[in-house]
Formats: sequence, C-alpha cells, structure tokens
Amino acid sequence: MAPENTTSATTRTESDSMGTVEVASDRYWGAQTERSLHNFNIGRETFVLTRPLIRALGVLKKSAALANAELGELPQDIADLIAQAGDEVISGGLDSHFPLVVFQTGSGTQSNMNANEVISNRAIELAGGQMGSKTPVHPNDHVNRGQSSNDTFPTAMHIAVVSELAAMYPRVQQLRDTLDAKAKEFDDVVMVGRTHLQDATPIRLGQVISGWVAQIDFALDGIRYADSRARELAIGGTAVGTGLNAHPKFGELTAKKISEETGIEFKQADNLFAALGAHDALVLVSGALRVLADALMKIANDVRWYASGPRNGIGELIIPENEPGSSIMPGKVNPTQCEAMTMVATKVFGNDATVGFAGSQGNFQLNVFKPVMAWCVLESIQLLGDTCVSFDENCAYGIEPNREKIQANLDSNLMQVTALNRHIGYDKASKIAKNAHKKGLSLRESALELGFVTEAEFDAWVVPVDMTHPSAADE
Amino acid sequence: MAPENTTSATTRTESDSMGTVEVASDRYWGAQTERSLHNFNIGRETFVLTRPLIRALGVLKKSAALANAELGELPQDIADLIAQAGDEVISGGLDSHFPLVVFQTGSGTQSNMNANEVISNRAIELAGGQMGSKTPVHPNDHVNRGQSSNDTFPTAMHIAVVSELAAMYPRVQQLRDTLDAKAKEFDDVVMVGRTHLQDATPIRLGQVISGWVAQIDFALDGIRYADSRARELAIGGTAVGTGLNAHPKFGELTAKKISEETGIEFKQADNLFAALGAHDALVLVSGALRVLADALMKIANDVRWYASGPRNGIGELIIPENEPGSSIMPGKVNPTQCEAMTMVATKVFGNDATVGFAGSQGNFQLNVFKPVMAWCVLESIQLLGDTCVSFDENCAYGIEPNREKIQANLDSNLMQVTALNRHIGYDKASKIAKNAHKKGLSLRESALELGFVTEAEFDAWVVPVDMTHPSAADE
Amino acid sequence: MAPENTTSATTRTESDSMGTVEVASDRYWGAQTERSLHNFNIGRETFVLTRPLIRALGVLKKSAALANAELGELPQDIADLIAQAGDEVISGGLDSHFPLVVFQTGSGTQSNMNANEVISNRAIELAGGQMGSKTPVHPNDHVNRGQSSNDTFPTAMHIAVVSELAAMYPRVQQLRDTLDAKAKEFDDVVMVGRTHLQDATPIRLGQVISGWVAQIDFALDGIRYADSRARELAIGGTAVGTGLNAHPKFGELTAKKISEETGIEFKQADNLFAALGAHDALVLVSGALRVLADALMKIANDVRWYASGPRNGIGELIIPENEPGSSIMPGKVNPTQCEAMTMVATKVFGNDATVGFAGSQGNFQLNVFKPVMAWCVLESIQLLGDTCVSFDENCAYGIEPNREKIQANLDSNLMQVTALNRHIGYDKASKIAKNAHKKGLSLRESALELGFVTEAEFDAWVVPVDMTHPSAADE
Amino acid sequence: MAPENTTSATTRTESDSMGTVEVASDRYWGAQTERSLHNFNIGRETFVLTRPLIRALGVLKKSAALANAELGELPQDIADLIAQAGDEVISGGLDSHFPLVVFQTGSGTQSNMNANEVISNRAIELAGGQMGSKTPVHPNDHVNRGQSSNDTFPTAMHIAVVSELAAMYPRVQQLRDTLDAKAKEFDDVVMVGRTHLQDATPIRLGQVISGWVAQIDFALDGIRYADSRARELAIGGTAVGTGLNAHPKFGELTAKKISEETGIEFKQADNLFAALGAHDALVLVSGALRVLADALMKIANDVRWYASGPRNGIGELIIPENEPGSSIMPGKVNPTQCEAMTMVATKVFGNDATVGFAGSQGNFQLNVFKPVMAWCVLESIQLLGDTCVSFDENCAYGIEPNREKIQANLDSNLMQVTALNRHIGYDKASKIAKNAHKKGLSLRESALELGFVTEAEFDAWVVPVDMTHPSAADE
Repeated sequence: MAPENTTSATTRTESDSMGTVEVASDRYWGAQTERSLHNFNIGRETFVLTRPLIRALGVLKKSAALANAELGELPQDIADLIAQAGDEVISGGLDSHFPLVVFQTGSGTQSNMNANEVISNRAIELAGGQMGSKTPVHPNDHVNRGQSSNDTFPTAMHIAVVSELAAMYPRVQQLRDTLDAKAKEFDDVVMVGRTHLQDATPIRLGQVISGWVAQIDFALDGIRYADSRARELAIGGTAVGTGLNAHPKFGELTAKKISEETGIEFKQADNLFAALGAHDALVLVSGALRVLADALMKIANDVRWYASGPRNGIGELIIPENEPGSSIMPGKVNPTQCEAMTMVATKVFGNDATVGFAGSQGNFQLNVFKPVMAWCVLESIQLLGDTCVSFDENCAYGIEPNREKIQANLDSNLMQVTALNRHIGYDKASKIAKNAHKKGLSLRESALELGFVTEAEFDAWVVPVDMTHPSAADE
Repeated sequence: MAPENTTSATTRTESDSMGTVEVASDRYWGAQTERSLHNFNIGRETFVLTRPLIRALGVLKKSAALANAELGELPQDIADLIAQAGDEVISGGLDSHFPLVVFQTGSGTQSNMNANEVISNRAIELAGGQMGSKTPVHPNDHVNRGQSSNDTFPTAMHIAVVSELAAMYPRVQQLRDTLDAKAKEFDDVVMVGRTHLQDATPIRLGQVISGWVAQIDFALDGIRYADSRARELAIGGTAVGTGLNAHPKFGELTAKKISEETGIEFKQADNLFAALGAHDALVLVSGALRVLADALMKIANDVRWYASGPRNGIGELIIPENEPGSSIMPGKVNPTQCEAMTMVATKVFGNDATVGFAGSQGNFQLNVFKPVMAWCVLESIQLLGDTCVSFDENCAYGIEPNREKIQANLDSNLMQVTALNRHIGYDKASKIAKNAHKKGLSLRESALELGFVTEAEFDAWVVPVDMTHPSAADE
Repeated sequence: MAPENTTSATTRTESDSMGTVEVASDRYWGAQTERSLHNFNIGRETFVLTRPLIRALGVLKKSAALANAELGELPQDIADLIAQAGDEVISGGLDSHFPLVVFQTGSGTQSNMNANEVISNRAIELAGGQMGSKTPVHPNDHVNRGQSSNDTFPTAMHIAVVSELAAMYPRVQQLRDTLDAKAKEFDDVVMVGRTHLQDATPIRLGQVISGWVAQIDFALDGIRYADSRARELAIGGTAVGTGLNAHPKFGELTAKKISEETGIEFKQADNLFAALGAHDALVLVSGALRVLADALMKIANDVRWYASGPRNGIGELIIPENEPGSSIMPGKVNPTQCEAMTMVATKVFGNDATVGFAGSQGNFQLNVFKPVMAWCVLESIQLLGDTCVSFDENCAYGIEPNREKIQANLDSNLMQVTALNRHIGYDKASKIAKNAHKKGLSLRESALELGFVTEAEFDAWVVPVDMTHPSAADE
Repeated sequence: MAPENTTSATTRTESDSMGTVEVASDRYWGAQTERSLHNFNIGRETFVLTRPLIRALGVLKKSAALANAELGELPQDIADLIAQAGDEVISGGLDSHFPLVVFQTGSGTQSNMNANEVISNRAIELAGGQMGSKTPVHPNDHVNRGQSSNDTFPTAMHIAVVSELAAMYPRVQQLRDTLDAKAKEFDDVVMVGRTHLQDATPIRLGQVISGWVAQIDFALDGIRYADSRARELAIGGTAVGTGLNAHPKFGELTAKKISEETGIEFKQADNLFAALGAHDALVLVSGALRVLADALMKIANDVRWYASGPRNGIGELIIPENEPGSSIMPGKVNPTQCEAMTMVATKVFGNDATVGFAGSQGNFQLNVFKPVMAWCVLESIQLLGDTCVSFDENCAYGIEPNREKIQANLDSNLMQVTALNRHIGYDKASKIAKNAHKKGLSLRESALELGFVTEAEFDAWVVPVDMTHPSAADE
C-alpha cells in the first residue's frame, strides 16, 4: 500500500447501485466512499474520522460476521475473511483507507459503507479475488449482513465512546491521585480561607486540595454512570429499529462478540427505536463530561490564582516553571498549564452545546446528526484526558506551598475574629474586625483595645488551626 | 399582616453591623433584607425567589435549630420558637416576607439573612418580644447558629431541587404512561417508516411510540441518578467548609432532621470544601434535565410532523383540536401543545447553558453564582413538569392514527423492497425500487416487470407486517 | 375593573369558531384567550407576558387601525374606537387583561388574539355595545384587519425589543460615563500591570479603566447595529408573507404609524417571507447583547479582583461597603454588585443560547418559537440595564484606588526590567529578573549586582511612569 | 528540508532564558517551540495551528520589521532578512515548522515565539549564519521588536479571521446567487403555504426561495459589520497595552504595512487595553456567523422537508441524487447535503458557545483564551464556506419543483378559504373550511353546500395566484 495521504495515479472501476466510479488502485474503498469524497469537501483538513471510530467499525464488522456465521446467516469462510480484514481495521493498519469527513450524510451511511467496502475488498484480496468484483465478499450482502447504517453507525459510536472513556479514566485518575497525595502532604499548612475573593476564616491547604479531589471524583462517578448507559447498543435494529433482515438473535449475539473483542461489557439496547431515532446516551455522556470540565476549570483557576504574583498576587502556591513566560517581559513565568486546561474546558462546553442541540433534532425513525455528535463527544474525551496528563506532569506534580507567604498572610488576616462569635456574639465580634480594618490594627490589638476579651481569652479562643474543624460550643 | 405586595407606611428600626435601617412595620424582615431590597433592583419583575427556595430555607432553619438544641448548642425553648416560625415559612404563610431577587450577592447571603431575620422576628413576636430587638431570638447567633450562608444556601438549593424533582416525576410519568398505553393500543398499526425524512421500511405505530416512552424512561433514569447526588448537603461546612463554629455532629444531625421534615433522604456531603466551592451536583442535574428536554423535543416534533396536513403533510396522526389555530386562516388547527413543548425545550437548553457556565466559575472556597444556578435548575424542573402535564392532558391523551391515510401511504411505499435483499441481493432489489420510482409503478409491478421474482415469491416475501420484526434468513 | 389577579365570579359568554366559552365578566378578553388560559398552564408563576410586549401589541393594533382607515379598509369610526382602546393598552391600563404565558402556540397567535379580543371588547364598551357580541368591533375582521398573528406577533416583538433597547442605552451609558470619569480622575495612578495573573509592566489606573469603557462602547456599537436591523417589521405579510388580505400599502403605512406612535423609526421589511419564517434579527440582537455581557463580566471580575483582600488579596481598589458580607464572619465586606453583574452575564448567555437555538428551528413559512425568543431577548435587555444602573449606583461611583497598596506593589515589582530590553537585550534583562526573584532582591539591586547597568543608567531607564506609553528607541 | 511530519534524528542546540534544548536539525524552530512541543501534548491529532494563523503571523512579522526599519528601530538589512523569511511563512513553505497546538499558553506566546524563532533561524540561514546563534537576527530583539505576544497574537488572530472571511464571502455568495436564480426561475409556481407545519394559504415557490436568499443576505450584512470591527488591531500595545518598548508610530505604521501586504484595510485599535484584555470583536464575529448558521439550518431543513418522500412526504421539491442513500434499503435517496449543512450549523453553535464563554474570561490586562477563540472562529468560517459550496454544487443547483405534486396538493388545500374573509367574514369562512374538512369535500363544494357564496363569487374570489400578493379590499 502507498504511504498515507497519497493515492496512486492508476485506478480500478468500482460500482454501486448508481453506476461505476474510478477509484485509486491502491485504495481498498469502493464506489460509495469515492462518491462521498467528492460530494463532501467540508472541513477536510480537520474532520476526517479518527482512530476510535474506525477501530469501532472494525470491531463491529468482525463481531457481526462472526455472529451471522454462528446463526447460520453467513457461510463460515466468508465470515472468517471478514473477521480477518476486520482485524486489520481494528489494529489501525487500514486507517489511510478511511478518508471521509464528519460532515457527510447524518446517518454515517457513507462511513459504514466505507467500512463495508474496505473490508469487502481486503477480504476479496485475501481470498485471491478481484477487488471491486464484490466476490466472494459483497459489501452489502455479506459485510453489512443483517445491518443498516442506522444501527451500525450508532453502535460504532457507542463502542468508540465507551472505549475512549476506558482509556480516559486512568489519565484523569493520574491527576486525581497526584492531587490526593498533595492533599495529604500539605494537610498541616494552615492558610487564609477566601470567599467572595475576600479574606475568610482559616483553612488547611490539604483541605483545599481535598475539595479538588472530591470534584474530580464526583465528575468521574457521573461519567461512569453515563458510560454504563452508553453500553447499550443499537445493533439488531437495522433500518428503522424493527430488525428487518436481521436474525432475531443477531443483535444480542453481536453485542456479546463485541464485548469479547473489546473486553468491555456491552449489550443490545432494550428499545431499538429510541436507539436509532435519538442519541440521548451521548447527550448524557457529554453532559457528564461537562461536569468534569467545570471541575477542571475551578481547579486550574484556583491553582493559577494561588500562584499569582510572584510579588503582587496571592502568591501562596509555587508551580513549576516550564518555559519563558513572555516574549517581551524577561524572567516572567506564567501558569500555562492552567491556561491550557481552562481553554480545554471552554472547548468541552462548546462540544457539549453541539451535542445537546444535535441530540434534539431527530425525526421519526432516525437522528441524522450522528457523525457530529460522535466527533464532539470523542474530542471532549480526548482533550480532557490529554489536559489531565499534561497538567499532572507539568504542573500538579510540582505544586508547593509558599510557606512564608502563607504564614504572613494568615498573621494579618482579620477573619479569625469569627472564632469569637460563640463567646461574645456576632455583633461585638463585628466591631472588633471593623475597628482593626479601620485603624490598621491586628485582630488581637483591636480586640483588646475594645475590651471585649482579655489577652488570655483571645489567645485561647483565636487559634487558626483550631478553626479548621468543627467543635462543640463548650470546647 | 398586610396583603402581598403592599407594605405599610409605618416603620420600625432594624439594625445590623452597619447601623440602623427603617423597615415597614408589617414586614418581618430586618436590616440586611431591607438593604438588599435597595441595593439590588435587578430583574425585580421576574426574579423574586419563589416557593421552593423559601420553603427549603424554612426546612433548613427549623432542622438546624432542632439539631442545635439536641447537641446542646441552643436552649430548647429558643429552638422551639425557631421551629415554630420555620413551620410558617415552610407552609408558605410568610412568602410575602421574602422579597429579594436572584441577582444579589452570589452566595445567597442576603436570602439566608432574610430567612434568619424573618424567623427571628416572627419567633420574637411569638415569644411576646419586640421585633428588631434580636431578643430572645437573634438572627445570627440563634437562627444561623453553627451556619454560614456559604453552607446554608447551597443546602437550601439542594433541598429545593430534590423536592421539586420529587414533584416533577409523577408529572412526567403521567405523560409517559399515556404514551405507553397508546403504544400498546396501536401496536397493530403498520405504517411507513421514515429515515432521513424519506420513506423507509414499515414500522408499527406501537413501536414508534414505544421509542418515545423509552426516551422518557432513559431521561428519568439519568435525572434520578443526578437527584441521588444532589441529596448530599453542604450543611456543617459553615464559612469555608471547615465547620468552624459548628458542633462536630451538627451537619450530620441537621441532614437527618431535614430528611425527617421532607420525607426525602438527605445526608451531609463527604467533602464540604467541594460542596461550597462548586455546585457540580446542580450542573449534573441540569445536564440530566437537558436529556429530558432533548427527548421531549424529539417527541413533540414527531407528533406535529405526523399530524401535519391536514391534506398536504404527513397526516398519519390526528391530534385534538383545542383552539382556533389562526387569526386570519379560518378553520386552521395547529399543533400548539407541541410548540409549547419545543419552546420549553429551548428554554431548558438556555438554563442549562447558564448553569454549566456559572458552575465553572467558583474561586477558592466559594462559588458565588448560587442564586442564578438554583433559579435556572428550579425553573427547568417546573417547566418540564408543566409541559408534560399540559401536553398529556391537551394532546397526547387524544392522539389517534389516521388509519386510512396510514394504509394509503403504506400501499404506495417502495421501501418494502428491502425484504427482497435476502432473496435476490441488494443490487437487484435496488433496480426494482429505482424502476418503480422512475416509472411511477408499484413495487410489485416493477418487480414483476423486471422478472427478478415471481408473483408468488413477491407476495410471500413482501408482507409489511412481517417486516416489523427480525427473522432468520430461512424463515 | 377588579384589582389585578382576581377575577369576578360572574361570567359572560364569549365565542369563537370552535364554540362558546365562559369568561369572567370583569375581563375584556374573549374565547380564545380563555381557551389558552386553560390549555397552557406552563410556567404561569414566571412567564406571563410583560409590559413591553403588551404595549407593543397596543401600538401595533392602533397603528394598523389608523392605516386601514386611511387606506379605506376600515370605517374611520371603527378605527377610532380601536385606536382609543389601543391607547389604553399602550398606557398599561389593561395589563391585567393579558394573562397568557410564553409557552403557548409558537406563533403567539393566542396573544395576538388576546389583544384583538381585549381591544374589541373595550372598543365595544366605549361604543356602548355588548361585550362578546363582536359588534360593532370584531376582533378578527376589524382589529386584526389585514393582519395575521404570523406578521403581527413578530412586529410586536420588534417594537418591544427596539423600544426596550432605547430604554436600556442611557442605563448602560450611565455606568460607562461614571467609568469614563474615573478613568480621567485616576489617570496619574501608576500601578502594576498583570498578565496571566502574573506581575507585568506598569500601567496607569486610568488606562485600565479606559479599557473597560472601550469594551462597553464596542458592545453598544454592536447593539446599535443589531437594533437598526430589528427596525424592519414583518407587518403586511399576513399569514405566509404574501400579504393576502392586506392592502398593498398597509405594511408600509402601518410601519409609518408605528414610527409616529413610538418616536422610533421603523420600516416594513424588504422580504416578508424571511420576516415570518425566521427571526434572525432577534438572534443578531441577542448575540450583540452577549458581547455586552462578556464585557460586563470582564469588568466586574476585574473590579472584584482588584478589590480583593482586604489584606490578603490584590487590594488595589476600594469599593463601597453596602451591606454586611457574611452571616458568620463579622466585619466581612464582599463585592456583591460584581457578583450580581456576573450572574446577570451568565443569565444573558443562557438566554442567548435559547434564542440562537430557537432561531434555527423555523419550518417553511413560519418560525414557531416566537414567544420564547421575544421573552429571552427582552429579559436580557432588562437585566443588562438593571445591573448597569445597580452597579453604577452601588459600586462604580465609589471606586477609589488604594494608593498606598498600589505604590507598595509597584515598588516590589520585577517586570519593570522590561524597560532594559532595548538597552541591554532580552537575554541579559532576563537574567536580572531571575536573579532578583531567586534572591529576593529589588530589581535595582539585582541589576547592579550583575553589573549589566550602572546606577545612573538604571535610574534613567527604569521609570515606571515612562513605561506606560510608547517611545522611540533613542528617547 | 525533510518531508512534513518527520524530523531528522540529528539535532542542534537552541537556547532561551531557561537554558538549552536540543532541536531536530532540519527544523527552524528554537528552544521555546521545542519546550511547548513537550509540555503541551493536548489534542495533537486535531489541534495543530493551521494555515490562516501561520500566514497571519508571517504577515505580521514582515510588516512589523518593515515598520521598525522605517522608524529607525531596526537596521534595514535585518528588516529585509526578516521580511524575506516572513514571505516564506506567508506562502506556506514553512508550515511544517509550526508544530504547536491550540492548547498551549492562553496568550499564544509559544506560537508567537515559534514565529520569531523560525523567522530568526531562516533569516540567519539566508544571511549565512549559524542557526541557534541568534546572530545576526535575534528572535526577541529583532523579530519581536516593539512587540509582545500579547499584542501580536491577537493581531494575527484578527488578520487571519478577516482574511478568511474575505475568502468565505464568495463561497456563501455562490449559494446565495444560485438560490436567487432559482427564486426567479420558479416565481410562477404557486404552491401550498405551510405554517405550524399545517396547510396554509398559497405562496409562490419563488417567494419561498426569496426568503432563503433574504436570510443569507441578512446574515452576510451582519458578518460584514462584525468584520469591520475585527479590522482594528492590537499591534502597538506590547505587553499590557501601554506600548512600552514600541515606537509611538509603530502600531499605526505596522497596521498600514499589514493592509498593504493583505490588500485588506486594517488599522490600529483605538484602545489597546481592551484589545489585549478582551476579544469582543471575535465574540461579535462568532455571533454573526451563528446567524448564518441559523439561516442555513432553516434553509437546509426546508429543502429536505420539501423533498421528503418520495411518495409519503411533502414531495414538492426534487433534489439531485448523489449517492445510494442506504446500506440496507435499495434505491433509497437521501438529502445528504442538507444533513451535512445542518450538522455544520450545530458545530458552529458549539464553537460560538466556546467563543462567548472564553471571551468573558479575561483578567486585568490579558485574556488568556486567545488560541481557542481563534481556532473556533476560524473553524466556523471554514465550515460555513465549505458547506455552502458543497450544498450549492451538489444540491441547490439541481433543485426542481415537482409540479404535478405541487398542483395536486394545492388543489386539495382548504386554506384558500382565507380569501373569503373579506367578503363573508372570518366566522363564516371558518365554517366552510371546517365543513370541508369534516366531510372530505373540496373547499368549493363546501362553500356552495353551505350557501355562503355563489359559484361565480367563489370562482372570482378564490384564485390561488391572486392570494400570493396583497390587494385592496375592493379589488
């Protein structure tokens, strides 16, 4: 085969129900793929379908062939040829034979046919036949046996999404675990709490970071729930969900084969009409990914604000210096990993808007926004995983408290006054804080000046570390 | 008390840490509510906090007082007075004393203080004291005991959201059950399937509607999952999540009291830092509601397209005529319930965009977009429930198939050709369909003309009702 | 008439093409309004149509009647009665007779009929006739003469939006002018610039604020452009844009009457098919409002970050203290107006998402998402105007620099090193900054220690105020 | 140079203020690009910066060098070397030397340095020097002279966006002109109008299509307005907007050089603080593009609904058959170009959501969401242009009315009854339509049966073509 992105000058003739088409002789695809290549020149530079979907189509076509053989719907030797070609699609060896873009027919028919054609021709080649002859392996009658784009493409979408989620989890977990270790490591660092961006009562750095960890855990739980719902496959529905032309056990058995191939448990959806006409599972996944994006935006913002300065910001965290920060300001270092992460968050939001919108636009027995929904969800998964690893390895691993700055800030903080509420009431405590603020006093100075507490009382009651946990009134 | 929306001309003096303020003498609120009323004149016509949040604040304040008393943090008689006033807030009797709008401080502090002030003054009144004196029930030291707006307002948000979801479920279910009955009732109606808006293989009306039911069920499952995560409450975190000034068991016990009061099981969140600094649970709920909006949009669109006509559309469903459809076209009837439902869907989308955005904007120990997030989620819940009931009672209940039109359409449909794939292959079947289309023939005429099948074969193989389920190749 | 929100127990009989309906005898509305009231119980607490749309319907109906009379399509006395009743609608006196909600038919037909019915009955009453008799003023044949909901409702939408924009401009301008005055007042205050949240080269506070002013000006320009496009009215299109049943000059003349009534120049849209089938002008307006929301979010965030502290944040701006900031932390003051403004921004984003989505959903000759689009755009206009005034009067007016803090921060800033680039090159300048950061030196100390400049050179070259404007290399 | 996407195994040493880095010896980039390559492995498969931005950086660097020379800030020979290397960047010859992704530092600093480094090294090579030596052309001191990433990257963003818009206009216009010709060609075809998806009064096909044309024109006007605002450039602002280290005339003169280079008129922005800290012009452009997306969604939906069938849909338009429509249903043809176009619309919506969100997130003197904003706007421009050409060449050019179906539909339509309103009133007309609908009569049959008109009157008054324009009552 020729190197990627170049096609041979010689051609062979391929045909479909509309007639014949010339195809580059070193490409496995057939007439319908070639037609789509000409008819849909939209976003070609960016939007050619990627590995996860191609792999998923391979998984599906192989599994379907094996299921059909087992059910007596395909001769075993035909099925074996399909499975063998399918394996090559799965492994990535035939990626350059999948040239179609997202913005094609909304059912993904052309990509389903692309898979049918490539597998058919490759199987024919393996069998020593002539490509384009559709013999002994026909793209529709054999590779697509018991299938329709309307059930295969959404099945492939789900396989791809669930598989990519499986790959994403450890990448998010890696960041989560780093933060969790930091939370434990810095649990003794008492610092100023901040609400409304204003100084508040003390908190421990470990507690701060534990909140980030909890957000990630929360988001992952939601994604896992959505993931579980995406494991329900449309396969067996064929054209309109009725299963016409499929064996009654085909959907269930193919799902089983897919599970075996991927090592991930899938099953046939209970209602195939919904599985073709809507893609609510992808909307659910996308919404769950958005929760993770929300969490990462909060975390990245916190990190860069805590690291702001070095001299004229909050300055309580130190983060790794990875590159010169400015083309004009010498010596400047910027929180670039945070910025990449927050940009990812905005991109995931945009993808989610597309998915939610597209997901609402089904009509009758089909939603024809399949490829763009799959693209957006897969892109969000990729970006979230990538940014977690990048942030972990280039930023989170090296987060350190600036203990001097933290202590200095804490010492000047007025909001420790809150500890006095229980002893002297909110109103008097308020007067102490306001007096200190107005006169530039420390809290202790102000409290004593106003005479609301004795020195001994103040020192016993206002202890920052004691303010970082609940306590009974009489403690 | 005076009637709603009028306040007395006479005033009493209320005070807070900033000084004194005059308040209408027939209002229970205090200085901070009055200040907010003047400082935040934003969206006043629409955005005054509504019943669900006010009720939730009442539930919370009552529960907190009882918990504090049980833990020895409040005298029992003070707690009882608070509980009694809290009951009035819960019942709705004091709604006109909650005049504040969404666009206030982002922590909801002013609404928390509104609750503290109203309950304090009403409790004082019950105890025979003087309103504004803060004796014997102080708004901060007693009603807000062991609390901060930063944990109470999100706690109230969650109580409100979960309670409103509980009220929404049967309303959505009502529509779902109507549709489910229709699915069963019309399971024998074989009609043209449609994909890409184009004629496709046959389907039964019962199957079509079962897809709608499945979408609603799917959406409800997702909402119930999100609901389960929203039952984790911030209470006990106080100002920054550390629980300063709260008894160690306060959060847990208050959650228990809230559960008792509402009959819904709540618990204290495991990580209170995340519970104050982020509202990912609301983002999750909102995302899950969007799935329902997606489903309803699909369903409402299907219904109105199936009912389009009466003479020049699809015309296969008949829906109730509820009102004249046009101010200019006499006799016109429109699918108005569908339109209301699809408009609701777009509103839920917009609310979701707000919630997702706002949910990402927390800093340090606090997210200060609480009121707008709560508003949007509660509004979406209300609208979704309302539109389901309205659609059910004014449209879905009366959906009927137009059997004549359905049969006529089915008879002219070419896509029954698909049944021939297994017998003569996709390529020949394709020729039959194209020939029929070109010459305006029926499928049977075309098949026989081309000689690919005999009359007997055609009649045996092309049976619409047999095409609405899978079958083995040799059946 | 009875007080708002209560309707009399006695009824009169009203009729429409579907039959008769009982209506409260103290309400002017007729059968179709009453039907809608029963059929659309969706979001009733929040979404009853408000003043701007009701007023716009009054303006339209009055203008249409006068135009019809002038064109000989209505007797002058009928037109005068309609105009008189229309004036009462315009003035607000009949608001309680417009009880319908947004979530009705998507063409706004029921609200158009509500206007027709109320004006008809009020005109009948003025003429001494019997309400419900449709004589001498018929809701369809006279009040709706030459009109259809399909052109009147979008016309009213545009009148309302353009009128509310006119009311919004001075409210936004008020904030803009306050900031502009602050920019001039504080033009001499040299402070630390910040990029990536990190210390950067000096800037003057006046320059900072001028950037905010420029953002508002930019946004207003965009809104004015969109406004100009919203002045093109659908009137004259009637049912499907063809103008059936309207006089050829009706649309143009009615637009002229509307201009006279409102004092704002409107005209009939060039293409009435687009004006009914799409509402791109509202999408454009909404997108332009979003730019203002973006600007306000940036400004409010800057203000609250500059005002963060008081001791452990940036602390360079002082903003008014309007209310106690915390229910638990005594003496805390928060940037609450900023928070309200940023919440408004997220709400405007959500509304914009709804409008953009709904705007794409027209079919054939009609977009049936009219009421929700109008609601969202009008709400955004209201909120943006409200928050600008609130922010101006409760925050912006009182913004003051904390000169001591600003100077102290500036003195410790390392990024003045940038001024040396031109003299010693980026690489050496970088070494000076890094050395200072590492050893905790001032920039001057570090520069001299490394020997890259003399004392005299440093003092001549590194002058913060000189760094706040461009200069030729040899200056 | 080596072929794209492979880098040589040998390396040279490059350095920046952080130290030395090895770079593949056949790549022009330097230390900072290499660092970014390692530090930001996020979305690498999709998100490498593309031609428009690379070209824009080339345009900018060349123009800046020439301006600096003219102002005496750079020796002419250095400027000429930079201009020569810049020309190679502009032409695309050095694209493989720009390997960085969107998700890098949010100021685009690394891509600005990428441009500085590549141009510096290529200029050094042209001068016969040693790559990496920074002599005689230094990436910061010479190529970046008078610049900062903070002003160059947004300048490049605007150059790219405006240039791509210029390329997009004729592509959208091409579709617009095809539709305009179709509108004229089919102006005589009278067909059923449809509102609420229900049969309405007649309309001419030319009118229908003219509405689509008007929508495109409207959208283009809005885009041109936004375009005009995007021609204001940040250049001259340097690090924080003050212009430090730039010659006072540098920004203005560079904008002039950029105009000369591109043939598009640009100017320096009036307020450079806003130009760095916010990117409202991109938000405006994105919002304007969304209007086009809305319009295209409406148009594509109309086309596919009108073309629905072939036998059981609306079926009034015939569109080209470009490919087999189904992998299972033989002979099926689908409206695939419409589907691609509506998917593009949803993608543009998602991009717009990202842009609006990111645009609100600036802090102080910098918005650090620059690359993602630029990416999304450029992608939307590309997709919209692509889909217009694809739709035009594969669908719109071949749209034909199905005259038989159109006439048959029109003949059976009941809504011509509307023409009777003026003669017999809305209420009687309504009875005629209802009677016809109920009994399955034609309108004429029903009118005569009820006796509201004579045969002669009916035939004179109810003439479909006369219903497609306004008319005076007495005509």
